[in-house]
Amino acid sequence: MNKHVYSFLQGNKDMKDLLGGKGANLAEMTHLGLPVPPGFTITTEVCGAYLANGDYPAGYHEEVEANLKQLEEAIGKKLGDAKNPLLVSVRSGAKVSMPGMMDTILNLGLNDETVVGLLEKTGNERFCYDAYRRFVNMFGNVVFDISHELFEDAIDEVKRAKGVKDDTQLDAADLKKLVQSFKSIFHKETGKDFPEDPREQMKYAIEAVFNSWNSSRANTYRKLNNISGLLGTAVNVQAMVFGNMGNTSGTGVAFTRNPSTGEKEFYGEFLMNAQGEDVVAGIRTPQKLVQLHEVMPEVFAQLDRVRETLENHYRDMQDIEFTIQEGKLFMLQTRSGKRTAKAAIKIAVDMVEENLISKNDALLRIDSGSMKQLLHPDIDPKASKNVVAKGLPASPGAASGKIVFTADDAENWAFERDEKVILVRKETSPEDIHGMHAAQGILTSTGGMTSHAAVVCRGMGKCCVAGCADIVVDAKNKVMKIGDLEFHEGDVITLNGSTGEVIMGAVGMIQPELTGEFETVLQWADSVRKLKVRTNADTPKDARTARDFGAEGIGLCRTEHMFFEEDRIGAVRQMILSKTLEGRELALAKLLPMQRQDFVGIFEVMDGYPVTVRLLDPPLHEFLPKTHEQVVELAGVIGVTPEELEKTADNLHEVNPMLGHRGTRLGITFPEIYEMQVQAIFEAAIDVAARGIVVMPEIELPFISDRKELEVGKAMVEKIADKYRKQITFEYKVGTMIELPRACFVADELAELADFFSFGTNDLTQMTWGYSRDDIGKFLNYYLEHKILERDPMEAIDQKAVGKLMDMTVKLGRSTKHDLDVGICGEQGGEPSSIAFCHKIGLNYVSLSPYRIPIARIAAAQAALMA
Amino acid sequence: MNKHVYSFLQGNKDMKDLLGGKGANLAEMTHLGLPVPPGFTITTEVCGAYLANGDYPAGYHEEVEANLKQLEEAIGKKLGDAKNPLLVSVRSGAKVSMPGMMDTILNLGLNDETVVGLLEKTGNERFCYDAYRRFVNMFGNVVFDISHELFEDAIDEVKRAKGVKDDTQLDAADLKKLVQSFKSIFHKETGKDFPEDPREQMKYAIEAVFNSWNSSRANTYRKLNNISGLLGTAVNVQAMVFGNMGNTSGTGVAFTRNPSTGEKEFYGEFLMNAQGEDVVAGIRTPQKLVQLHEVMPEVFAQLDRVRETLENHYRDMQDIEFTIQEGKLFMLQTRSGKRTAKAAIKIAVDMVEENLISKNDALLRIDSGSMKQLLHPDIDPKASKNVVAKGLPASPGAASGKIVFTADDAENWAFERDEKVILVRKETSPEDIHGMHAAQGILTSTGGMTSHAAVVCRGMGKCCVAGCADIVVDAKNKVMKIGDLEFHEGDVITLNGSTGEVIMGAVGMIQPELTGEFETVLQWADSVRKLKVRTNADTPKDARTARDFGAEGIGLCRTEHMFFEEDRIGAVRQMILSKTLEGRELALAKLLPMQRQDFVGIFEVMDGYPVTVRLLDPPLHEFLPKTHEQVVELAGVIGVTPEELEKTADNLHEVNPMLGHRGTRLGITFPEIYEMQVQAIFEAAIDVAARGIVVMPEIELPFISDRKELEVGKAMVEKIADKYRKQITFEYKVGTMIELPRACFVADELAELADFFSFGTNDLTQMTWGYSRDDIGKFLNYYLEHKILERDPMEAIDQKAVGKLMDMTVKLGRSTKHDLDVGICGEQGGEPSSIAFCHKIGLNYVSLSPYRIPIARIAAAQAALMA
Repeated sequence: MNKHVYSFLQGNKDMKDLLGGKGANLAEMTHLGLPVPPGFTITTEVCGAYLANGDYPAGYHEEVEANLKQLEEAIGKKLGDAKNPLLVSVRSGAKVSMPGMMDTILNLGLNDETVVGLLEKTGNERFCYDAYRRFVNMFGNVVFDISHELFEDAIDEVKRAKGVKDDTQLDAADLKKLVQSFKSIFHKETGKDFPEDPREQMKYAIEAVFNSWNSSRANTYRKLNNISGLLGTAVNVQAMVFGNMGNTSGTGVAFTRNPSTGEKEFYGEFLMNAQGEDVVAGIRTPQKLVQLHEVMPEVFAQLDRVRETLENHYRDMQDIEFTIQEGKLFMLQTRSGKRTAKAAIKIAVDMVEENLISKNDALLRIDSGSMKQLLHPDIDPKASKNVVAKGLPASPGAASGKIVFTADDAENWAFERDEKVILVRKETSPEDIHGMHAAQGILTSTGGMTSHAAVVCRGMGKCCVAGCADIVVDAKNKVMKIGDLEFHEGDVITLNGSTGEVIMGAVGMIQPELTGEFETVLQWADSVRKLKVRTNADTPKDARTARDFGAEGIGLCRTEHMFFEEDRIGAVRQMILSKTLEGRELALAKLLPMQRQDFVGIFEVMDGYPVTVRLLDPPLHEFLPKTHEQVVELAGVIGVTPEELEKTADNLHEVNPMLGHRGTRLGITFPEIYEMQVQAIFEAAIDVAARGIVVMPEIELPFISDRKELEVGKAMVEKIADKYRKQITFEYKVGTMIELPRACFVADELAELADFFSFGTNDLTQMTWGYSRDDIGKFLNYYLEHKILERDPMEAIDQKAVGKLMDMTVKLGRSTKHDLDVGICGEQGGEPSSIAFCHKIGLNYVSLSPYRIPIARIAAAQAALMA
Repeated sequence: MNKHVYSFLQGNKDMKDLLGGKGANLAEMTHLGLPVPPGFTITTEVCGAYLANGDYPAGYHEEVEANLKQLEEAIGKKLGDAKNPLLVSVRSGAKVSMPGMMDTILNLGLNDETVVGLLEKTGNERFCYDAYRRFVNMFGNVVFDISHELFEDAIDEVKRAKGVKDDTQLDAADLKKLVQSFKSIFHKETGKDFPEDPREQMKYAIEAVFNSWNSSRANTYRKLNNISGLLGTAVNVQAMVFGNMGNTSGTGVAFTRNPSTGEKEFYGEFLMNAQGEDVVAGIRTPQKLVQLHEVMPEVFAQLDRVRETLENHYRDMQDIEFTIQEGKLFMLQTRSGKRTAKAAIKIAVDMVEENLISKNDALLRIDSGSMKQLLHPDIDPKASKNVVAKGLPASPGAASGKIVFTADDAENWAFERDEKVILVRKETSPEDIHGMHAAQGILTSTGGMTSHAAVVCRGMGKCCVAGCADIVVDAKNKVMKIGDLEFHEGDVITLNGSTGEVIMGAVGMIQPELTGEFETVLQWADSVRKLKVRTNADTPKDARTARDFGAEGIGLCRTEHMFFEEDRIGAVRQMILSKTLEGRELALAKLLPMQRQDFVGIFEVMDGYPVTVRLLDPPLHEFLPKTHEQVVELAGVIGVTPEELEKTADNLHEVNPMLGHRGTRLGITFPEIYEMQVQAIFEAAIDVAARGIVVMPEIELPFISDRKELEVGKAMVEKIADKYRKQITFEYKVGTMIELPRACFVADELAELADFFSFGTNDLTQMTWGYSRDDIGKFLNYYLEHKILERDPMEAIDQKAVGKLMDMTVKLGRSTKHDLDVGICGEQGGEPSSIAFCHKIGLNYVSLSPYRIPIARIAAAQAALMA
């Protein structure tokens, strides 16, 4: 028979699947001898069974009773005992931490009888009724979904009647009255009396935690973070300790190192005479943890020892919660601390130096996806800027956007209108997650570095300025005031999450550089990874940026981007639309030197590294003149009437251009275009090679579905190469993109001719799923929201189908040519789970946009370490 | 060491791979004791080696010499002997018969010396010089590609000078002069003297035959007939016999049964005092074979015995060539005779009755693809028609079209302008093949039932009226005259290939019925086939036709076709474009009874058989109003301005609609449409079931790429079914189309939910190849012409990729649900090689358009027999 309930003495940190992160770590801390209030954990299996069957497994209730009894004995109090009542907290705790996502109930066990007993024990009437009214509020809100505002209104009424502003100005009598008002609210909203029986309270609370697993906000969080495959949440029932029993009590949260910078400093916040929720919710602005040293030096010293114990034990930066009850320290939580990418890097490198972890551990611990934070633009220090306010630098990076005041607006503006927005809130709550996801950055007027907004933004790698007391947010009227300044919905501001600055208007940004610890980590990564990392770059500038980030070649140089440049689009159009050979030749003669110069520039930058040049891919009509003016001008150049030209252009129209006359199909039927491009490649390569540059051109034929196409295309390349045979002192390759399912099935035949394959997973995904990236918007959001799709298959390689095609392609291709070079140049090649997959199926390289290269270097190393 | 040359005494009919069809059958006839002039065959391997290396294999020349010597001894004449010269024919003969495709040289061995010897032996000067000038002409034309017209011009000049009209009016002296003129032409065109050495002549001739294998016309024939994988052609060198040695000589071709009707009658044509080419080329109009009985009764009797011997031996209808030299019969060829579909059926059934072959042999012998001839429309006997001329009924069927006069015009008009054309020619030649392929029918003014036009048309299943002496064709001026009538390019005529009638204008056509022998064969087929045959039908009328052709259910009922009907497109548009729920509901309420009535009609016809109804598939914008008038009208109905309506319509535009918001994606995001359709299906089924009709609805969700989509779609169906649960007395199924590569990879998951799969191979092929049927025209012809594609993958299942996906799908699907019903409803399902493939991978049924059902029944039987 399964065990359903574990006391903190029975669990340990490796039991997260069963006990959740919180429960497992409470047990672990208990074993380490740290001051943890006793308690027990109900397993995730119970939650799974409850959600599936609506009932509890056999034996469960007996186990809860036995554990409760043990807890009562340990504490020397009894649940519901009118003289000496035990109060407990009931908290969720899934395997994966979901900050703010799950619901918590404190002070459970209070009722009209036990509150008297508590008062007798503590002699602190205000504390008792404060705890009681909080409990009724929380219970009503969490278990019966009664709006928090109803309770707030009742408080406001009391405050108004009394003529005070702050909750702290309410005395015991006020709070006692509030308990009764809250119970009335409870009755009005639920039609039931507030449950006085503590065991009934506990049953309700546990079920509420279970049900919250399926709340839409929990679902959203899991969706956004790609969390799946979990049974449910565990529930922790723990003896209450109180940070709000007076001036020798308090509560706080802390990180064992700075989660923003990674510095080795004890970093956190506390509030005296407060319960934990006050800190996390950001309602009162807390003090810095170092100040605790002055307030309670002994407790601080004890906490500092706890910090050291935990870091040495967990060998990772910890995020802890503690409460001080009448001078006595209690630990309520420890977990691996969320951190910015910058901090993650610094902590990893420092811990290796401190001999806490190995280099490989350090690499594996870095969330490669979050590294994009380090690669985001920052505010140009030289730019002039009008700083209008300053808040806490809660999550680094910078962003400009139009102000919106609600999460729904953020989502609408971002996805419907395609606007960049900054979400401005008094404070954020889990209900705002979707809007935070949609926004470029978050600005709040209250809350600290560990407030909801700050924690969530750091996790998302999104810039956040929190607790900016200078601003007054009037969400109802959609106005933000800073002194005399008024900002309305749609006004542009810029946030600097690294400094806390709020800036009027948009500000110039600069690109980040790799330095210090990051470079160290990347070098460790390079020493273990097997996958090469190339870049997708079409210009010498991009190529240079990519080299600076560590690119080992170009995996995709899209020549069509060159065709769109202003100085050549005219010639391109002339080439497409001329009906005479002379006209085409004229146009091609104009384009050749430009293309050659493009390649010269790229080859120079990529000295010593391969450059894969994809010949023209998109359908010709993409290059057509868009305006009547352009038509008239071009008609003059070509020597036809605008009407004739428009007719020619019309003939190029396609119903489904993505499946149309493009890629090598174009190169075969309009050979002069590819011939010009190949000529430009060879001439450029010969030019740079003569200057001592090591050039390795790889000519790539796109959109191949059959061996014959590749045969014709390759023959065309070789025909041009023959013209330069004597001058070709370098090695060159001819290969193909793999973008069509058919190419995958005939990969063995293609490999007879191709020197390399490069997966174009964008197209391959489109073909496999029957998705058009241009049109997917019509149903994709609906599909994601309704969980018909777990994830956009354009984002990460769909391993169920696209991945199988890839794996088959590699095997078939290498069955013919065992040393076939295979890479990927689709967008997914920069996504960590896809990189791991590419490693697994034996690709030689991934190729991605320059700013994603460091991420790929780390992800590739992780893939190699985990293989 | 390989043997390179086989005498006719060494080969046999089973050696076609090596000796070609002609050589193998000449050897076989020799063994049967039939009067075959002696000779030998050079193998296809020699041809293959020659074409690959430009040289002959070792030992080849010695073998030719040895065989030549044997031949000389058998005949008692010697090649090049001035006194007693041996003359030979050199003829191609590949494994597969290619009528008129390969080149032939007769009378080889003649030169200025041997012609004198021949004259001494025969005493027939005219014959000798006639043979000589023909040889020079043929040799120059075939080996050195000298235009036939140059020789014709020389003849015309002689005739003009002499004032005669016919070749037969030229005497020996004229012909002797012509030999010299021809040699001058030869010298002028080639810069060489005509080769007098017979061995040199023979070497040239053999090489010409080899080279003709790669001629463009041979390539075209092979492409059109999907012939591939052959090494090359064999070459037959045979002692000449002469049909032009006077009035007791002659030549003819015959079929052992009527190749047009299949009647058991000796059917053919002959010409006295002529060489075989005169018959085949259609220059002189020959006599019917039965008349030979009167001209030369003994020879006819002998030929009739040969006919019986050959039919009993080959157990198939034979196509034979013979020559009578001075009263003596010689057999020059036998081969399986090409026949119309009607004849094929009759011959097969008759031969079973004659105990010549078994039923299975009969089934296997039928070319199921050619059966479409029997299923083509014919002229309505009740239609009024203006018959303006009558020719030979050379190939049955009927066709209307616009007149064109050249093969190139036929191709241009048909493919570029999408016109139906009739190709009108004096006579056709292999150079016209591409135009014949493009035309609906062929009309010639000369030539008989075995002329090039007649033979090729019967093979193509295309209607042909040949030898229509009433018409005068002036191709140069693009005019055809019939008496006083003039027909110009573009004028419409109708041909009846079964009667030989040429009709002015277009005439009403009727659909064929299955009768007699065809029904017999189909019943044999039904008794052996494993695949069920269903139909793709959207109306009760089509469903009825399909039942008459033997359909065992509907495999695809496309509901969108119903949406386009005039009385409902308005409601459909209202449904799509209404922005209010009321508007949509109004429209759906209008559509529901119409859809219900559609299904009632179809279910009634398909009593006892399953009907697969595919829910709406195409993107909504396909239904949008096309004209401004329609927009204005619809705007009035919906109650919005035309501008608003156009904006809504614009929002539905897609860049790649084939990959867009369609199929079940639409059903999920606009559930009311699918709900209405499902409701109509259930209501219709309940209605007909109540009347005692056996109804088996199968509801099909299209364009599924993931299990989740099917889950949502199926739940929608079941939700509606729940409303009618008590009235549902019949079984229904819910299944999915397999159209996307992704669906193939997750087929095991889909099969957990689906009762059936139906392959939509049109879309599956498009996705796999990245082809858009709407746009493929931009490069497909180029690809086919340049052999980049062997065959349009939309025509037959591409077994290299699409077929592998299908096979995988069936295996995965049945791994979850072992009795999963799987069918195919794409166009390829009606193509014989695809049907064989479907049988092989274990499909339950194929579904195709009504007129293709008989073909599929036979093809399915053949697949079962060959498995």
